[in-house]
Amino acid sequence: MKRIALFPGSFDPFTIGHEEIVRRALPLFDNIIVAIGYNSAKQGYFSLEKRINWIKDIFKDENKIIVDAYEGLTADYCVVKNAKFILRGLRTAADFEYERAIAQMNKMLKHDIETVFLLTKPEHSPISSTIVREIIRYGGDASQFVPKEIDLLK
Amino acid sequence: MKRIALFPGSFDPFTIGHEEIVRRALPLFDNIIVAIGYNSAKQGYFSLEKRINWIKDIFKDENKIIVDAYEGLTADYCVVKNAKFILRGLRTAADFEYERAIAQMNKMLKHDIETVFLLTKPEHSPISSTIVREIIRYGGDASQFVPKEIDLLK
Amino acid sequence: MKRIALFPGSFDPFTIGHEEIVRRALPLFDNIIVAIGYNSAKQGYFSLEKRINWIKDIFKDENKIIVDAYEGLTADYCVVKNAKFILRGLRTAADFEYERAIAQMNKMLKHDIETVFLLTKPEHSPISSTIVREIIRYGGDASQFVPKEIDLLK
Amino acid sequence: MKRIALFPGSFDPFTIGHEEIVRRALPLFDNIIVAIGYNSAKQGYFSLEKRINWIKDIFKDENKIIVDAYEGLTADYCVVKNAKFILRGLRTAADFEYERAIAQMNKMLKHDIETVFLLTKPEHSPISSTIVREIIRYGGDASQFVPKEIDLLK
Amino acid sequence: MKRIALFPGSFDPFTIGHEEIVRRALPLFDNIIVAIGYNSAKQGYFSLEKRINWIKDIFKDENKIIVDAYEGLTADYCVVKNAKFILRGLRTAADFEYERAIAQMNKMLKHDIETVFLLTKPEHSPISSTIVREIIRYGGDASQFVPKEIDLLK
Amino acid sequence: MKRIALFPGSFDPFTIGHEEIVRRALPLFDNIIVAIGYNSAKQGYFSLEKRINWIKDIFKDENKIIVDAYEGLTADYCVVKNAKFILRGLRTAADFEYERAIAQMNKMLKHDIETVFLLTKPEHSPISSTIVREIIRYGGDASQFVPKEIDLLK
Repeated sequence: MKRIALFPGSFDPFTIGHEEIVRRALPLFDNIIVAIGYNSAKQGYFSLEKRINWIKDIFKDENKIIVDAYEGLTADYCVVKNAKFILRGLRTAADFEYERAIAQMNKMLKHDIETVFLLTKPEHSPISSTIVREIIRYGGDASQFVPKEIDLLK
Repeated sequence: MKRIALFPGSFDPFTIGHEEIVRRALPLFDNIIVAIGYNSAKQGYFSLEKRINWIKDIFKDENKIIVDAYEGLTADYCVVKNAKFILRGLRTAADFEYERAIAQMNKMLKHDIETVFLLTKPEHSPISSTIVREIIRYGGDASQFVPKEIDLLK
Repeated sequence: MKRIALFPGSFDPFTIGHEEIVRRALPLFDNIIVAIGYNSAKQGYFSLEKRINWIKDIFKDENKIIVDAYEGLTADYCVVKNAKFILRGLRTAADFEYERAIAQMNKMLKHDIETVFLLTKPEHSPISSTIVREIIRYGGDASQFVPKEIDLLK
Repeated sequence: MKRIALFPGSFDPFTIGHEEIVRRALPLFDNIIVAIGYNSAKQGYFSLEKRINWIKDIFKDENKIIVDAYEGLTADYCVVKNAKFILRGLRTAADFEYERAIAQMNKMLKHDIETVFLLTKPEHSPISSTIVREIIRYGGDASQFVPKEIDLLK
Repeated sequence: MKRIALFPGSFDPFTIGHEEIVRRALPLFDNIIVAIGYNSAKQGYFSLEKRINWIKDIFKDENKIIVDAYEGLTADYCVVKNAKFILRGLRTAADFEYERAIAQMNKMLKHDIETVFLLTKPEHSPISSTIVREIIRYGGDASQFVPKEIDLLK
Repeated sequence: MKRIALFPGSFDPFTIGHEEIVRRALPLFDNIIVAIGYNSAKQGYFSLEKRINWIKDIFKDENKIIVDAYEGLTADYCVVKNAKFILRGLRTAADFEYERAIAQMNKMLKHDIETVFLLTKPEHSPISSTIVREIIRYGGDASQFVPKEIDLLK
C-alpha cells in the first residue's frame, strides 16, 4: 500500500520553512499532497490561484508531490485522498501545543489518521506566513523568507 | 458559610470537557454557578438563550448547580453572587499561562476571590468550544464533543 | 461528609510560598493535612523531625490543620486518611506540566482522588525549597523566603 | 558611540509594567526612544495623540527618554534613529516565544540590531494593555494598572 | 531503499506508551529497531537482559520489529544500522523542548538523520518509565502502565 | 559610571553559544566579567584551571573582557565586583522559566542587580555544555560546538 501524506495549510504565502519540511519528508512517503485548505467565505492575502501556482512551480521537478486545494474538514479530505498521514512541521513549544490539539482532534474524527511531525530547522523557526505578510504590509522586503519561485511583488 | 463557586465562560457551546469539570468539582462546593459571560455588542455562534437552556438541561438533576448569565466584569459578578471561588479547568501549559493572567488579574481587582483549578481529563484535552464551532463550520459532526443533551443541528 | 485535603511535599524546608497556599486554601476545606512524604533511604537537608516541628509551629493556631509524615505512595496515604483532595500550588508553566503528570497518575491509581490547584502569588513564584537550600549552601541569607517561625541557623 | 535603545509598542494604553521596564533600563542606555508603532489603517482604542502625550507626561523629568511614533517596520525605524538596541520586557513563557520570533525576525532583516530583554517584576506579570482595555470595556476600574499620569476617564 | 527507523530509549521498563508509539509507527516504516541505549558504567533499575527479553516478547509476532541494544552515540548507531529515521513520541511541551534539542543535535552530528515524531495518546501522556519505577519503589502496583507481557514482580 | 556585567556559568566547557552571547553583548557594556562559579566540594568534568585558561585564550584580544572564578552566591560576587548587570543567554521556553526564577531570586537578594537577556542564535539553540559532555562521554566528536581555542582532546 502506498504511503500518502497530506501537508495541509493556507500557505498564504508558502515559505522556505514549508518547503524545507516537504523536501525532508520526501524519503518517508510515496506521495505528498501539498493542499491549501480554503474557506470560500474568507479571502486570503494572496489569491488561491496564485498560491497554488507558486507551490506547483516550486515542486515542478518532484513527481512524488501533488498540489491541490480543498474546502471542508482536513480529516474528510484525507479520506477522499486515501491519505493515512498528515505531515506537519514543529518550530516552538507554542506550535507544539496548538498542533497537538489539532492532531488529537483529527484522530478523534478519523481514528486511522496519523499526524507525523518533523522539526523545522532552527534558523527557520521565526519564519511564518503571518510574519511574511506583516513585513509586506509595512513595506519591507520579505523575499529571503519565501522560495525563489515566489515573486511577492508580482 | 456556604462555599459558592462561579464557573464562568462563553460556553459557545458547552462541551463534555466543561461538563466533566463541573461534575468533578461538585464535592468541593455547596453551590456552583455556571454562568455565561456575554457582551451585548458581540453575537455568539449560538444564541444566549439556547446556550443557557442547554446547560440547564444538562444539570437539571443537580440541585447544587445554578445556571445564569452576566454582563460586565467577572470579579464584579462574583461579589453580587457572593461567590468567593472561581472554578476553571486546565488542559495545557498554554491554557495555564492564559488562565494565570486572568486569575491574578481577578485577585488584583477583588482581593478575596480565589481561583480554583482542576485538570481536564487527558482524553478531553483537545476539546474546546472553538474547535467544536470550527468542525460545524466545515460541515463535520461534532456531536461526540458535547453532552448528549445538546443537539447541535437544531 | 468532611472535605479533607492533603498538602504533600518534602518541605525541606517549608517556604512562605507553601504557607501562603495552605492559608488561602483553608476556606475551601474542613481539614488540611500538611504531610511530609519521606523516604527512609534518602536523607533530607533538614531532619524530618525539624521539618515537622517547624510546620507545627507555623500553624499552631489553626485547628483545621494537621501535620504529619508518611512513607509510600501519596495516593495510598490519601486512602488511609480519607482525604479525597490533594492540594497543590502552581507557579509556572514548567510546574504545571510536572504537576499535571503527577496528578493524572494519582487519579489513575485511585480514581476518586481529585487534585485541586491554587496559584502561587506572583511575588512568591521564584521561591522553592531547592533555591532556599542553594542559598544556604553558598553562605547566603535565605530567611526572607521562609516563615518567621523557621530559624534556618539553628 | 551612544547606546540608543528603542522601546516599541502600541501602548494602548501604556501600563505600569511598561513604565517599570523603561526605568530599569535607564542605566543601561544613553537614550531610550519610547515609540508607538502605528498603522494609519487601524484605529487604536485611545488616540495616538493621547497615547503620546501620556508617555511624554510620565517621563517629563527624564531627559534620556525620547517619545515618538512611527509607521512601517520596526527594524527600518531603528536604522533611521540609529538605535542598535531594541528593549523588550518578558513576563511569561508564552511572551518569550512570541518575542523570540519577533527578535529573530528583526535580526534577519537588519543584522546589527540586538534585542535586549529585561524581566517584568513578578507582581506586574498579569498586566497588559489588552487586559486594561477589557476592564474598561466591562465598566471596571483599571487605574491601578496604569501610571498615575494617565487618566483613563478623560 | 528500505525505510528503517530507530526507536531508542533506556526502556527501564518499556511502557504501554512506548508500545503504542511503535505499533502506530509500523505503517510508516519497513523496519523499526527498538534499541536500548545503555552505558556499561551505569546500572539500570531492571537488568539489560530483562528489558530486552520483555520487548522481544511484546513484539514477538511483528516481524518488522527488531530488538537490540547499543552503547555509544545514537547517531553513530543509526549509521551502523543504516537507519535514516529516529522515531520518538511526544507527550508534553516540556517533552518537546527536550526532544527538539536532542534531535537537532543528532542532525548536527549526522546530517541525513531525520527524527520523526508521533503524539502519544492523551490518556498515556502521564506515563513514563521514571514514574513506573517510582510507583514500584514506594510499594505500589504499576502493572496497568506496562504491557501485559511484562511481569514487574518477577 | 562604568557599565559592568557579569556573565556567570560553570562553562564546563565554554561553548560557541556562550562565546556568541558575550561577543554580541560587548557594545552594551564597558566590561564583561566572564566568571566561573565553582563549588570546591564538587568536581567539574574539566578542571577549573583548564576552563579558565580556555576562556582567557578565546578572549585574549578583547580588553573589555575579564576572566575570573568565584565561590559563593552570584549576587554577592556582583557586589564585590561592582557589577550591576548579570548577562544571560536565552535559548528556549524551558530556559526562560529557569532563568526567570534565578534572576528574580538574585533581585530579591540584591535589589539593584539587573539581569539582561540576549537571545541565542537559532542555530546554536541545541548546544549546551551538558550535551557537549555527553557526546564526549559516548566517544563522539564535539569539536564543532566549542570555540576553536578549545582542544577537547588535550
